[in-house]
Amino acid sequence: MRRPYFLGHSDWSGDQAANFPSSLLNISMEQRPGLPREVTTKQLGISVEELLVILVIEDDQNVQGIVEEALTDGGFGPAIAASGEEAVSLLKGDRSKYRALVTDINLLGRLDGWHVARVAREIDPNFPVVYMSGKDAEDWASKGVPRSIMLAKPFAPVQLVTAVSQLLNIGTPTA
Amino acid sequence: MRRPYFLGHSDWSGDQAANFPSSLLNISMEQRPGLPREVTTKQLGISVEELLVILVIEDDQNVQGIVEEALTDGGFGPAIAASGEEAVSLLKGDRSKYRALVTDINLLGRLDGWHVARVAREIDPNFPVVYMSGKDAEDWASKGVPRSIMLAKPFAPVQLVTAVSQLLNIGTPTA
Amino acid sequence: MRRPYFLGHSDWSGDQAANFPSSLLNISMEQRPGLPREVTTKQLGISVEELLVILVIEDDQNVQGIVEEALTDGGFGPAIAASGEEAVSLLKGDRSKYRALVTDINLLGRLDGWHVARVAREIDPNFPVVYMSGKDAEDWASKGVPRSIMLAKPFAPVQLVTAVSQLLNIGTPTA
Amino acid sequence: MRRPYFLGHSDWSGDQAANFPSSLLNISMEQRPGLPREVTTKQLGISVEELLVILVIEDDQNVQGIVEEALTDGGFGPAIAASGEEAVSLLKGDRSKYRALVTDINLLGRLDGWHVARVAREIDPNFPVVYMSGKDAEDWASKGVPRSIMLAKPFAPVQLVTAVSQLLNIGTPTA
Amino acid sequence: MRRPYFLGHSDWSGDQAANFPSSLLNISMEQRPGLPREVTTKQLGISVEELLVILVIEDDQNVQGIVEEALTDGGFGPAIAASGEEAVSLLKGDRSKYRALVTDINLLGRLDGWHVARVAREIDPNFPVVYMSGKDAEDWASKGVPRSIMLAKPFAPVQLVTAVSQLLNIGTPTA
Amino acid sequence: MRRPYFLGHSDWSGDQAANFPSSLLNISMEQRPGLPREVTTKQLGISVEELLVILVIEDDQNVQGIVEEALTDGGFGPAIAASGEEAVSLLKGDRSKYRALVTDINLLGRLDGWHVARVAREIDPNFPVVYMSGKDAEDWASKGVPRSIMLAKPFAPVQLVTAVSQLLNIGTPTA
Repeated sequence: MRRPYFLGHSDWSGDQAANFPSSLLNISMEQRPGLPREVTTKQLGISVEELLVILVIEDDQNVQGIVEEALTDGGFGPAIAASGEEAVSLLKGDRSKYRALVTDINLLGRLDGWHVARVAREIDPNFPVVYMSGKDAEDWASKGVPRSIMLAKPFAPVQLVTAVSQLLNIGTPTA
Repeated sequence: MRRPYFLGHSDWSGDQAANFPSSLLNISMEQRPGLPREVTTKQLGISVEELLVILVIEDDQNVQGIVEEALTDGGFGPAIAASGEEAVSLLKGDRSKYRALVTDINLLGRLDGWHVARVAREIDPNFPVVYMSGKDAEDWASKGVPRSIMLAKPFAPVQLVTAVSQLLNIGTPTA
Repeated sequence: MRRPYFLGHSDWSGDQAANFPSSLLNISMEQRPGLPREVTTKQLGISVEELLVILVIEDDQNVQGIVEEALTDGGFGPAIAASGEEAVSLLKGDRSKYRALVTDINLLGRLDGWHVARVAREIDPNFPVVYMSGKDAEDWASKGVPRSIMLAKPFAPVQLVTAVSQLLNIGTPTA
Repeated sequence: MRRPYFLGHSDWSGDQAANFPSSLLNISMEQRPGLPREVTTKQLGISVEELLVILVIEDDQNVQGIVEEALTDGGFGPAIAASGEEAVSLLKGDRSKYRALVTDINLLGRLDGWHVARVAREIDPNFPVVYMSGKDAEDWASKGVPRSIMLAKPFAPVQLVTAVSQLLNIGTPTA
Repeated sequence: MRRPYFLGHSDWSGDQAANFPSSLLNISMEQRPGLPREVTTKQLGISVEELLVILVIEDDQNVQGIVEEALTDGGFGPAIAASGEEAVSLLKGDRSKYRALVTDINLLGRLDGWHVARVAREIDPNFPVVYMSGKDAEDWASKGVPRSIMLAKPFAPVQLVTAVSQLLNIGTPTA
Repeated sequence: MRRPYFLGHSDWSGDQAANFPSSLLNISMEQRPGLPREVTTKQLGISVEELLVILVIEDDQNVQGIVEEALTDGGFGPAIAASGEEAVSLLKGDRSKYRALVTDINLLGRLDGWHVARVAREIDPNFPVVYMSGKDAEDWASKGVPRSIMLAKPFAPVQLVTAVSQLLNIGTPTA
């Protein structure tokens, strides 16, 4: 049911995709369940590019699946990055594409989620940030950025979409 | 799947409906998907009149459909008004029927969404207000009412129901 | 579709269940709809015990059904208590099992929802509390605990999961 | 420098004051330091009756003095009640006179500060409440009313006037 | 003790001042009481121009005096405008000079405080706005701008400086 | 008028003070103006040790003077640290002595204010933090800790005490 989504290159041929950096191949965006892609985007009256793309950094396949499903069900377009380095590269490459960051703390590579969030805020001081963590939740008070939200694992999927919504909605205070 | 809903007159015959002002025919309320209407209202243990009716002003058919679906899925009863004038008339006609306003900014007719929201707040100073707009989102700070929420288009459906929920829930601060 | 859930004893034989106090048999937890139980918990990458168990006190069968469905759809594990006395006993018996309280005001037995919430806050000063009430909603300002949320009946299911999510998410202010 | 203030009877003769219930004689309001009383009230362009009278329950003479001075310096008119019973009587006797409650927890008499605050909120659901306590501060989460503020002793005088100001100012969220 | 302050022209000769539009002559800034002007500004380590200038619109001389004194005591530099028209002209003339607006509702001239606040927010969407009013306080919900504060008259001076401080301090939520 | 304050050693002889690490000699606490020290502490009904000690890191003598005066006038006891290293040492040496941190960003030594605040939050996740900065104010969103307040220089003294008060008062939301 889920198909990989190539951001900005939805008409790529298989060959082009084959030459694309493998990490980006991880980026996927789900359709709204049960609807053909065309109907979904037409219904929204917007092109795919206008979908709210949420950058997700999570290497645990199970959690990644839950997060993708929750965001997609809520109407967001999740884009998965495999590491903090990749996420930073994506954020710097196209500042206006991503509308929020949802990140685990312990990531593959050198950068952790705390670091990526700081970079995102250097690019845009109002960038919405949601952390997800089990054992590091208590570090939020010292390592998190202001006006972010920490989801202590385990969390229910609706907590994630509520968190992202609150941070995106103008006029909703967060701490 | 969606059937028109005649507020307070669910047993009207077709003839009565035919004589009803056409603008009100636009008001519709969806059933909960996959359940017959009777089961739904019985399950809730409340009569149809007790459903939380959210007044929606949106003339773009595509966005209107998304908004209706999001509100209905969340358990609200959306009532669509075709213009600001009609919305003001509905709000003044039955102060206790509507529980929140969800409005576009640029409307058919003379009144815009900013104006309708001010009228709603004159009637009830605590009336929940959610604005939806693309290019006018930045005007919220000068033209919006206090404790309202602005959804910048494009937005995900879950942002809308989160916004309405926050404004309705007693004890949830908003700005 | 809904099966009773025996907290922490999912492998009990029928005989053991038969000897269990009847009130606890009321405690149930739904599967995610349309998925076999095993798939659900595997997908979440967590064991059943890690699910966020929300303690619900509501004796109206209709409202109870709505609440269970809303929480389950959101990804929470509702556990129903039949009375305030039972809820207090459960909260005192296992402080870390329950993650939030969702309670009606007028309950079977001597204790009302205001009382149970105070006990929950004595055990854990940060325990999330959501009240649900029709005629008692106005008493929240004098009888509720700080940083709780009152849902005035009738309410939409999404209001409930938004309220629980806000109270659980670290960094989301409530009043 | 401080003179007793007889609420609503500033022109009472000594004889009248002598016949006044002794508890009320405790009620006092300070002048703004360094200014004759007449100048102060004229400057404010309001009559004495319009001053914001804050009901204070505190039997420790030292703390009472600090609280009176802090409120007076901030421009409020403190009225001291000697017990919870007296405070309840004052609140019920003239609902519109008092604009906020500042109360210790452990009081002379049977009623404690938690109880008085609940009575104040039954009279006016929006009544501002500030608690002051040392060892009972941790009970605020279970015994306080929503949207109140707890000042843990010892506290600085400016914390008190900031707390009262936040609760009185329309548009300032509190928890 | 109070001397008129000519914004940006503190070395003007009397002749220049005589030719200055009379309304601007109303603009004054107090020294910190009891200190010669030179000491004050040297202590702050900033030049006069760096003082936080708060634009105040209030034609009642008594209230104006209270507001000036409260702001000055708090460390702000109040600049008084005699009408809404003058305030709009000042705000448009030098966008970065004024840091907050404190305004009465009913003003001399055609513009009221609601209008001036909207203009200030058009110039700067984050501009802090504090309204002061007696009989119009209830209109804040329909006519105020988001994230502003309404001081219902009579108010204590400390409420005013708390309101301005909250709106200026980054990280303090308001509604 | 200001005399140095030796924390916890107010009865030290001059000889002892002479042997004390020089950096600590910088720590001072003002009396309430116009009152002999004894009267002040007696009035408060608390011993000196119970005063709310606010740790201040600010090497600009002018700003330091303003901050000390503002905190002292508000009723707090400011303790000045000359560098980030000294502040960290003080915080680690006596976790319960200091009740809030007020810090400049650019400090003498290797550590900056962002770093000290993170250490304070590692020691106590709820530790109140107020930053003061001119050119670094925009970095708060990426480098600040959650629920802290940034004072953009220049700021008025009342903004500082309001910020500290809000962070100390239980029930006051911050971001």
